[in-house]
Parts: sequence; C-alpha cells; structure tokens
Amino acid sequence: MADLHALREQRIETASWAFGNSGTRFKVFAQEGVPRDPYEKIADAATVHRFTGVAPTVALHIPWDKVDDYGDLAGYAKERGVGLGTINTNTFQDDDYRLGSVCHPDERVRAKALAHVLECVDIMDATGSRDLKLWFADGTNYPGQDIIRVRQDRLAAALAATYERLGAGQRMLVEYKLFEPAFYTTDVPDWGTAYAHCLALGERAQVVIDTGHHAPGTNIEFIVAVLLRAGKLGGFDFNSRFYADDDLMVGAADPFQLFRIMSEIVSADALRADAGVAFMLDQCHNIEPKIQAVIRSVCNVQEATAKALLVDRSALAAAQSSGDVLGANDVLMDAYHTDVRPMLRDLRADMGLDPDPIGAYRRSGYFETVRSTRVGGTAAGWGA
Amino acid sequence: MADLHALREQRIETASWAFGNSGTRFKVFAQEGVPRDPYEKIADAATVHRFTGVAPTVALHIPWDKVDDYGDLAGYAKERGVGLGTINTNTFQDDDYRLGSVCHPDERVRAKALAHVLECVDIMDATGSRDLKLWFADGTNYPGQDIIRVRQDRLAAALAATYERLGAGQRMLVEYKLFEPAFYTTDVPDWGTAYAHCLALGERAQVVIDTGHHAPGTNIEFIVAVLLRAGKLGGFDFNSRFYADDDLMVGAADPFQLFRIMSEIVSADALRADAGVAFMLDQCHNIEPKIQAVIRSVCNVQEATAKALLVDRSALAAAQSSGDVLGANDVLMDAYHTDVRPMLRDLRADMGLDPDPIGAYRRSGYFETVRSTRVGGTAAGWGA
Amino acid sequence: MADLHALREQRIETASWAFGNSGTRFKVFAQEGVPRDPYEKIADAATVHRFTGVAPTVALHIPWDKVDDYGDLAGYAKERGVGLGTINTNTFQDDDYRLGSVCHPDERVRAKALAHVLECVDIMDATGSRDLKLWFADGTNYPGQDIIRVRQDRLAAALAATYERLGAGQRMLVEYKLFEPAFYTTDVPDWGTAYAHCLALGERAQVVIDTGHHAPGTNIEFIVAVLLRAGKLGGFDFNSRFYADDDLMVGAADPFQLFRIMSEIVSADALRADAGVAFMLDQCHNIEPKIQAVIRSVCNVQEATAKALLVDRSALAAAQSSGDVLGANDVLMDAYHTDVRPMLRDLRADMGLDPDPIGAYRRSGYFETVRSTRVGGTAAGWGA
Amino acid sequence: MADLHALREQRIETASWAFGNSGTRFKVFAQEGVPRDPYEKIADAATVHRFTGVAPTVALHIPWDKVDDYGDLAGYAKERGVGLGTINTNTFQDDDYRLGSVCHPDERVRAKALAHVLECVDIMDATGSRDLKLWFADGTNYPGQDIIRVRQDRLAAALAATYERLGAGQRMLVEYKLFEPAFYTTDVPDWGTAYAHCLALGERAQVVIDTGHHAPGTNIEFIVAVLLRAGKLGGFDFNSRFYADDDLMVGAADPFQLFRIMSEIVSADALRADAGVAFMLDQCHNIEPKIQAVIRSVCNVQEATAKALLVDRSALAAAQSSGDVLGANDVLMDAYHTDVRPMLRDLRADMGLDPDPIGAYRRSGYFETVRSTRVGGTAAGWGA
Repeated sequence: MADLHALREQRIETASWAFGNSGTRFKVFAQEGVPRDPYEKIADAATVHRFTGVAPTVALHIPWDKVDDYGDLAGYAKERGVGLGTINTNTFQDDDYRLGSVCHPDERVRAKALAHVLECVDIMDATGSRDLKLWFADGTNYPGQDIIRVRQDRLAAALAATYERLGAGQRMLVEYKLFEPAFYTTDVPDWGTAYAHCLALGERAQVVIDTGHHAPGTNIEFIVAVLLRAGKLGGFDFNSRFYADDDLMVGAADPFQLFRIMSEIVSADALRADAGVAFMLDQCHNIEPKIQAVIRSVCNVQEATAKALLVDRSALAAAQSSGDVLGANDVLMDAYHTDVRPMLRDLRADMGLDPDPIGAYRRSGYFETVRSTRVGGTAAGWGA
Repeated sequence: MADLHALREQRIETASWAFGNSGTRFKVFAQEGVPRDPYEKIADAATVHRFTGVAPTVALHIPWDKVDDYGDLAGYAKERGVGLGTINTNTFQDDDYRLGSVCHPDERVRAKALAHVLECVDIMDATGSRDLKLWFADGTNYPGQDIIRVRQDRLAAALAATYERLGAGQRMLVEYKLFEPAFYTTDVPDWGTAYAHCLALGERAQVVIDTGHHAPGTNIEFIVAVLLRAGKLGGFDFNSRFYADDDLMVGAADPFQLFRIMSEIVSADALRADAGVAFMLDQCHNIEPKIQAVIRSVCNVQEATAKALLVDRSALAAAQSSGDVLGANDVLMDAYHTDVRPMLRDLRADMGLDPDPIGAYRRSGYFETVRSTRVGGTAAGWGA
Repeated sequence: MADLHALREQRIETASWAFGNSGTRFKVFAQEGVPRDPYEKIADAATVHRFTGVAPTVALHIPWDKVDDYGDLAGYAKERGVGLGTINTNTFQDDDYRLGSVCHPDERVRAKALAHVLECVDIMDATGSRDLKLWFADGTNYPGQDIIRVRQDRLAAALAATYERLGAGQRMLVEYKLFEPAFYTTDVPDWGTAYAHCLALGERAQVVIDTGHHAPGTNIEFIVAVLLRAGKLGGFDFNSRFYADDDLMVGAADPFQLFRIMSEIVSADALRADAGVAFMLDQCHNIEPKIQAVIRSVCNVQEATAKALLVDRSALAAAQSSGDVLGANDVLMDAYHTDVRPMLRDLRADMGLDPDPIGAYRRSGYFETVRSTRVGGTAAGWGA
Repeated sequence: MADLHALREQRIETASWAFGNSGTRFKVFAQEGVPRDPYEKIADAATVHRFTGVAPTVALHIPWDKVDDYGDLAGYAKERGVGLGTINTNTFQDDDYRLGSVCHPDERVRAKALAHVLECVDIMDATGSRDLKLWFADGTNYPGQDIIRVRQDRLAAALAATYERLGAGQRMLVEYKLFEPAFYTTDVPDWGTAYAHCLALGERAQVVIDTGHHAPGTNIEFIVAVLLRAGKLGGFDFNSRFYADDDLMVGAADPFQLFRIMSEIVSADALRADAGVAFMLDQCHNIEPKIQAVIRSVCNVQEATAKALLVDRSALAAAQSSGDVLGANDVLMDAYHTDVRPMLRDLRADMGLDPDPIGAYRRSGYFETVRSTRVGGTAAGWGA
C-alpha cells in the first residue's frame, strides 16, 4: 500500500502561462475563455487546485504577470485558496536580447537584463515567494559569433549579483536547456553547466531540471539521482516530449520515464517538503483545452508518485544486492504496472474532493462561464 | 579543374519569406529595412541575383505573397532580372487548421485546405511556375488523438485531387518533416511516406528533401542517392541545423554534409537543369541580416557544388572497385579540402560580376537605401 | 473486457540465438547452462512455450543452427511441443564480408552471399518454414568508400534472385537497420528503402520492423500503420533500447511505445494469424539469465496486446471524430493504465498453465538441470 | 600565416590498441600484418611517428599491453624514437565485471577492480607515464537493477583511493561515455559527472573528452571551452562517428566539428604543452588498414589545428564585440575553408620528413614486411 500521507502532502505548482494562448513558430491557435490578465490566470490555477487538492501555488512569469500591487494579487489568490509561487524571469522577449541577455556582448544589455532579474527578487519580497527561477535563452546561432568562455564569465557575474541580492529564505534555481532559441551554442545547455555555476555560488543556488530540455537519449533519472546526492536538486519543470522540447503534458509521452524519475525522488526520501525539491509544471497546451490539460498533468504526476511509493524497497534492495537483474527489475515493474487510479480516487474522496477531477471540472460549468465572460480584451499569451 | 560550365549554369532559387522577419516561438526580432509586400521581397531577391548571378528565380508562399495581379508581379520581377519560381502552399496559419488541414477530421476543413492548394495551382498558371511545393503541417500531438491510417487516406485523396489539377509542364513536390508543429505523429514525417504517395500519384509527383527535416543521425545523401535512382527527387529545400529543424544558413552547420549531398548529385549527373532537381533555399535569418545571409547561402551551395565537381571520379571508381577504403575516401576528401573560392572568384569575374558578392553587396548601399525607405507599414513575416 | 480469444490465439516466435551467449564488442559474458547446439536451443525454446503457451515456434539462424538433418531437428522440436519457424540468413560473419555481402564490390563475394541466401530457402523447404528473414549488415564506413546507388542495384539483383527462388507459400521479410556494423551508409537503413524494394519485388516480399533499428525520435507506430495500410507489414523483430540498438527485453525500455505499436495492430485487425504479421523476438540477454528473460519478453508482448485489446474503440472513434484531443487520449490511456496481469493469469489458468510463468519456470528446476548437464563443449554464441 | 612553431611542437599520442584487430559485436575482421604483442604494436606506433613527426608517444592498455619488464619495453620504444605514454585501465573484460567493476554491488569485485587500477599506477611508475586514463564500463541494463547514487558512492571511493596513490607529477584523467556497454544507466555518462568527481578529488584529477561519447546534438566545443575555463580539461580521446560511438578516424565524419574543437583550444592558448591538454587518438580501424589510418588521423588533427591557428583572432574579436554575426562567422569560416595541406607539406619538409606521410609510408615497404613476418601467433585484439 502506497504511502497515502505522502500523496496527500504532495505539492505540485502550476504555471500562470499554461493558461494563456501558446503555439509554435508556425502558429498560435487562439482558444476561448483564455485569461486576459494575471488575476484571471490565478482564477484558473485556483480551479485546478479546487479539483485536485495538491496544486496550492501558481508560478508567475515577469513581466507577463506584472501588476501594480502584488499584495492585492496575493490576496486575490488567497481568497481563491491558492498562493503565489516561484517567480520566473524573462530575458528573451525584448528586441535588445537578440544576441543574448546577461551574456550579451554589450554591457548595456547585460545591465538591463540583470536589472530585470533583480527586480524579480523585489517582486519575490512582495509576494513572499521562496524561489527565483532563471532560464536564460542566451546563446549563439553561428560558430564564431561570440566567445563561449567570455559569455560564461558574464553569466557568472550576473548570477553572483543575483545570489548576493537574495533575501533570507530565498533561493535561485538555475535551469538548463540544450538548445532553442539559440541554435549553435546555448550558455546553460546541460546540467553540468548549471551545476558548476550553482556550486560556485553557494547553497542557495540549485539546479532545476526541465524534463523536456535534454539531448535525445539522456537518462534524466540519472541526473536526478546525481543532483540529489550532491544536494543540488532544486526542483523540476515538468512536461514531456517525443522529439525536441515541445511541452506536452507531463507523463503524456513516456509515463514510464516519469515513474522512474519519481522513483529516484522517493528512493532518496526527497518527496517530503523539507527536501527542497519543487515540483512545478512548465507546459503549453497548444491544441488542447488548457485548464483540463493542467488538471490531467497534476493527476499524471500524482499517479507516477503513487506508483513510485508502491515500490517494495526492501525487496528491491535484496534483489539489487544479490545481483538479481531480472528480479530487481520485476520489483520495479510490479509497482509500475499497478493501476493506482482506484487508490487516488479513494484519497481524493478522503480529502473531500470529487474522485474524478476532470469529470468534476467538466461538470462544474467553469469553462462555460469563462468562455462567456472573458470576451474582449487581449488574451494572455507568451507575448503578454 | 572543376566543370566551370556546370557552375555557371547552376540555378539556386531563393525564397521570398527569407527576407521577412522570422524567429522562434520565444521571440521574433524585428530587423530594419525588411520588405513590407511581395514586391519589396522580389526586389531583395533580385539583389541577391545581381551579386551572385546564379539565383534567377524566387519562390512565393501563398497567401503571404498573394497579390491581385500576378502578371504585374512577374513583370516587376522580370524588370529586375529575376523570375517567379516555385509556389508554396500554406495550410498551417488559420485557426481552422488546429487539428490539421487536408488530414483534418472535419471534412469542411479538408475541403478548405484543398481549395487553397488548388488555388495555388491557379496562381502557377498565372505566374508560369513549374513547381508546386506541398508541405503539410498536419499531425497530432497526443497518442489516440486521431487515426494514423485514416489520415493517410485523407492525405492521399487531397494529393490525388491536386495531381489531377496540374497543368502540362507542372509538377508537385511533396515535402516531409519529422515533427513540428505536430509533436506526436506527423502525416508526412519521412522520405518513405512522401515517396509512397508520389509513386501512387505518378511521374509528376516528386519528393523534395528539406535538409533540416530529419531525425538525428539520418544520412541525407543516402536518401538523395536512393531517390535519384528511383527518378523521384524533385528538389531540395536547403538550410542547416545543429539540433532539430532551425533553418540556419545552408552549409553553416555541417559543410561536409552539404558537399556529400552535392557529390551524390554530381555523381548521378543530376546537376544539369533537365535532371529536374530544383535547388531551393528555405531558411530563416532570425538574428543575422537577411539579404547578406541569403547571398552567403547561395555562395555556400556554389562552393559545395564546386568541390563536388572537383572529385576525381575515375580515381574514385578505381579505388572503390578495388576495395581500397582509405584510398577512395582520400579521393573524396582531396576535393573537399580544396579551397574553391579562388576558382569561384574567377568564375564571377568571367560572368561580369564582382568576385566578392558579399563585399559588393555591402558596398552597394542597397541596405542603407531600404533601411531608410522601408519605413512605416507592416514588415513581412511568417504571419503576413 | 479484452478479447480473451485473441490473446489465447496470439503467437510469439522465439529466437534460437537468444539462448546462446551474447554481448557487446567489449565483452561477451559467459553464462552457465547455455546450449551448445541447435537441439539444446530448441529445448530452451520449448521450455519457454511450456510456461507461456503462446510461443509455439522458434526461429533459426543459419549457419549458427545448421544441422545435417532438418527433419530430425523438426521432429525433436515437435516432440517438445514446438515447431521450427522463420529462417534467418547470416551474411556478416565471414572474413569475405568485410566490405559487404550481396552489395560487395566484388562479384565473387556477392555470389557467395547469394548462394547462402538461396541455401536458406532450401532449408525452409526442409523445415517447412514460411518466412525467410533477410537482414544485411552491408554498408560503408567512410564517405566515398563505395557508390550508394550501385550498391542498391546489387541489392536489388540479389533480392530478385531470392524472390524468384521462393516456393509456394513462402515469403521473404526484408529488415532495415539505421546503422551498425556499417558506420557511414547502410544499404537498407530505413523502412522506406525496404518498402521500395519489396514493392518492386511483389506481394510475397514484406517489410519487417525491428523495434530497435531506428533513428532517435522515430515514431515506430506510424511506420506500423503506414505499412499495414500498404499491405506490406510482414512482421516484427521485438526488443527495446534506451539508446542505439542494444536488444534489451521488449517492453523494458518503453512499455508505452510497445502498447502504441500493438494498438495499431489491433486497430487494423492485424492480430489474427491470417493478417500475416509475424510477432518475433530478436533480443540478446547479455547480463540477465536467458530463458527467464525470454519468458518475461513473451509476457511483455502479451500484456501490451491485452491493453491494446482493452481500448474502447468506439469511444475512441467518437472522441477522434469530434476533435476531442484530451478525450481521445484519455480513452487510450485508460486502457494503458489498466493492470492486465490478473486477466492474463486467468487466461493461463484457463489454458491449463501456471498463472505465473516466471515463477513456474523457476520452480521447475529446468535451469538447475541444464546448468549441471550442459558442461563441456562450446557454448552457443553469435560466432557459432 | 599559421603559427608553424605551434604545429611543429604539437604532440599527438597514438594508441597501442589501434594497431590490433577490432570490430563490432557482429564480427571482428582479421587483417594481415597485425601485431601480436606490445613490442610489435610499439613498432607500428614508431612507424607512425617516423612519417608524421608529431606522434612521439604511444598509450598502453593494461592488461592487453602487460609485459614482464616495462623498462625493456620503454627501451625498445626509445630505440625506435618513441616513448610510452598514457596508461589505460581495463575493468571490463573479466567475467567478474558482468555487473560492473568499481561500482559493482559486490565488494569483492570492487576490490579486484581497484587493485587493477592501482597496479596501473605501479606500471606508470615503471614507464614514467604522466597520465592514468580511467574509463569505466560500469552501469546497468535495466531500471531497478542497482541504485544509482550508491554506485556513485562506490565510484567516488575508488577514485579517491586512486587519487591518493598517484605519485608526484602523475595525473588521473576521468573519461565519460553516454552508454555502451551499459544500456540503461552508465556510471560516468557525461562531462558533468566526470567534472563533479574531479572537482571533489583535486587538481590532479581532470576530465578527458572522447569525441565519440556524447548524446546526439551535443556541442562538444562548448564542453571544451567550459572545462578549459574551469582548468579541468585533461585531454582528448579523438575519433569520429556519424551515429553512436563507433571510433572512425578523427575528422572523418565531421571535419568542421574537429576544427571548432581545435579553435577553442587555440583560442584559450591551450595548445602549448604546459597547458596540460593531452591530444590522444582512441580509435579502431575495423575495415581499413590500421597503420595508414592512424597516419591519416594524425594528419587530420594537424590540419584542423593548422586551420584553427589561421583564424584571425583580432578580426574575430572585433566582429564579435560589435555584434556582427555574419562577419564573425566569416572570419572563422575563412580559416576553415583555407587549404592548409601545402603549408603542412612545407612544415614536414622543414622537419626533414617526407611531405606526404601516407605516400611515404606506402612506399616504405613497412606493411609488406610486417605482413610477411608477422605470421603465426595470436594477432592482438580487444581480447588480448
């Protein structure tokens, strides 16, 4: 029997931008009922929490979610049962960032980017957020375009200035991404680079793993295990993909991989809140309805976690230590093959929730309401 | 000595959309002097031809390049020394195409997409274009979303209706792409699928190879050779990439690969115009100046071609037939390592061109002129 | 409720070479109790069938499984409850094949390779096998080493001579593999090449999909669907891998992918025997016990098949036709998440088998017997 | 003009195992004239140096190159103009290592593996070698087989014991490899893991980059730059590949990549000997003649180095700092497109060598001699 207490205590953070319109370079398909401002995004996130019970915070992306009064925004969230979570910086959507932000060859642009990052820490002070998430789109498109190691120096300087600015109880999470939008070098392309910088900075700098940001064939659970061993895993940006990064719903492309990742977390006892691993969604829903997709994603993480909790760790350890390759694999697969949905339905009922979050959401009429009331204005998207 | 005549006769088609603004899902960086309508794009393409001498046609993308009077547009092009080339369809930038175009589950959308494709043949009639290039963004994002084989049936029906509509001397070129914007299945993901459809259609349906549209590790020159052997290679969309499809300048990421591709062309005597292989650029220039990048790309194709022409084919054949692995490789590498730029400078001088196309373009003042005159209006881009 | 009849009738062919020693270029680890001749391999295969009930045939690999009297071998198999299945050719383990076999530049080597292939058809006549499986290790390691299209001509000639030789009721299955042992070009690298040759040959030539032989990111179920639509899917060589081809147990690396593959089979009603799709294992068990691993693999295919049979096809069709992306995905995932092991245990009990094949095998003492009796002689392996 | 002095001083280490037979899991093709013991391998390596002038040391692999008297072996080498170089450990070719070596679950096996590694340091003392190269084939094939982080602990312990044992002036180089022979997890799969261990050990532990050991799409020159910046690049194992690791001749698959790598070296002034970057070949020559292939490989590294030295660094810096993307790329490409072979021919003549190493080797009759004299005995290979 899986540890129901652990499942009940699990926290999965949603992302404000998942509720806005998104797409590819080819087309952003507009959807109905999409929020038009940060308040409406928070209302959608609160709806996800209302039906799942395990998504009590929502991450913000600055400047997309910039408001005049963060206290008011936090109050609005609190009224709806959720809180403001991680603050995400954005140093890629200004014409000044064509050749990079904190790694740009021009000092003026670097200073502008750093000022934005530091402003985000100000916002953290106002929202009470613990985590600053840093993803830099910086890189180059052509060999020779810039000097890799000098860009690393610039990056290190910006990270150090940010680290210095962090308040008590605040952390910075450094994200990596193999490529895109930079197409030749990326300044933080892999976990090794993020790790090296975090190590140089200190204990409040941690690596965040976006599950879509790896080269083909990369073993993500290995990175999880290694970072946990080093005390440097700050959290996850969850999503999934069949090809390059494309932000499908977490667990949609390879549910077994998600299970293996969560199994490493459980195995290292890092599911508990004080282990400091943030479980965040970072996805886009280009063609499917957004709120429903976020609910499904939260459930997918729950299901993978439940299976990971079901692994018979002592049987596994016995098989491992005796070199029983197939026996050990069988123990793991036994948990994976178990249908944990009945157990999760029971858990939800026990938490006073509808056992079927998707069905309950559909029946609630929430979508019909926002579709009819969110008319006019500008739908939120990656550009606003 | 390479075959200078072949180099002089080579034709590389530019793409109208390369001159407009482009970018990634994260950001389109606006550039100065970007054309605002099809006429200005043609002016830019003509500038490329003026300095390179081997880019006498420009491909159009419909509806981006829709005009009321194609005769007028063709006349405008002719005045500037170029002609209108391949017509590219666009069935991915309408909200109706969220779940596909000619493969969409809804018959209404399929009919709309087919009507667009057939309209493009009408435009070919008006422009005198030989080739219709068909790239379908169709596919699905999630397992189960639609039925793969039924979508193939829908695709086959649309292709057959298009083939039927082709006039005398017209061809259709079917392009494939591994993924994106569809993230689970793509309806024409590989050369095998395109080939199977072209075979079913008839001899005027040919496969087009976009050099950026393959899975990691795919041997593109093998596909070139196999399609040439089958008489089914209609042409190339040239670009290059280090990761997934990203449309860097052709030859920028792997110049040796481009050489190997051109060597297959030369080896099969398919460089001559009547072999029916269209050499087209299909690239975007997100951060670099566009006209200059197109000139560089044309030169890159020329250089690879010149090296391919330098291969000592009889020495190569002798080494190959005697099983001399290193000797055969040496013959090929000898051509590749040769610096063909002096020879191309001589060729250009002989054609009455400046030996240095990039330098000549820079000195011409063209960019300064368009930067100062193309002010106001809406810069062309993927959306317009 | 899944179609128990279909599960009962399913046939999964085991491979004789899976029971011998295998490894990587770095090391072959010897195991105890490994068979020393074709008879002992068949005894192992019969053991797999005895405990699973759905593996009634075993494929042979020539010359590894060459015997003087195939009638005797068939009789031995029959006594143990199994039959001889597909005949696999081997044109890669002779020093003559350094530069290829049927595609070799030297006519003498090509003739030798073809003679071997034709001898395999003779063996089929003796064993009564239906299928000849052709995997050619042919290719080149260095650019320029040989001429791609000429090698295709040689390949076509060998295939045509083989096709011509096939007797009534015999088929040839053409396998493809992206790379290895050839490291630059491979003469049959992808399904498109295999398909083109099979199409040229006729209806008794079919493509076989080895699930480990694709470029990263290739959507295998798409290929399944396209080949089924074209009537050209002859069968599968099942295995799994996380990186390049490495022959782990089928379903071990990505059980969801195996399910999606089987779902395409079920969706096209191609599970039934007369659809002509052969389900074969082609794996190696380098570090795990071999017989147990084969039993586990058979069970993995069964489980994926059972889940595919559970898909509510009418609900799926309804969601698909209405464009309900998440609804359609939910229908598929509902089947995938179901634990089918209880159902399969019931099925086995109903077939008179132990519900737990692995446990029953372990308890049977078979391994202890072969470990103590198969002493001396030369253990079977890839080289013998 | 490139820095001829730097080219003259460049040192490229050959590998003793490159001269022995090698192959894939499918087949090792025997070649004529292959050495039968370490002395004959050294004779071959000396031949490579005799014709290239820049390959004065040869790496040994233990136990393949185990001899009773290393002083005698060193003397033999010295007589022929070369020296003994890096010592490579081998912890993958004993049946005990089926589940790993220093990371094996069984303490006995770990101790055995560590003893071997320490014995290699003894050998270094005898040969006067500076570098110990550590590549561990350790890993797992199936999820659950062993505990990733515990294996990291075991690895760290073995590395620490080895580091402790190093004598004055000795270094250990830690190599990483994405996968193979382990097919699920590899205990040192990427540069980040190697770097983290080296950082924990101290300054005499450095990372070695094998150019074939990365996931598809990995930017190797980025890793070079980052490790150089951190003072942790100990050297290279050079080879090339089109797909997964396959040990083709360095520069054969992607000469532009090799140039970019060498350009990072030159840009960081790390070509000079006291920068501590060892340039080593680690390749196999499965189908091509081995000595000739090693000479070609040495020349390929020289050519890439010469081109890297030709880069106009001040023009490059000017273009980079002004954000001139195409201008900077042009500066780099100008060097790459230059044919440096005439310059290298001059250099060789100036060094008293034949300008054409391959031709001189062929004309020397060396191969004919070894082919006729190395008859009988057991040809060296990976297993011996």
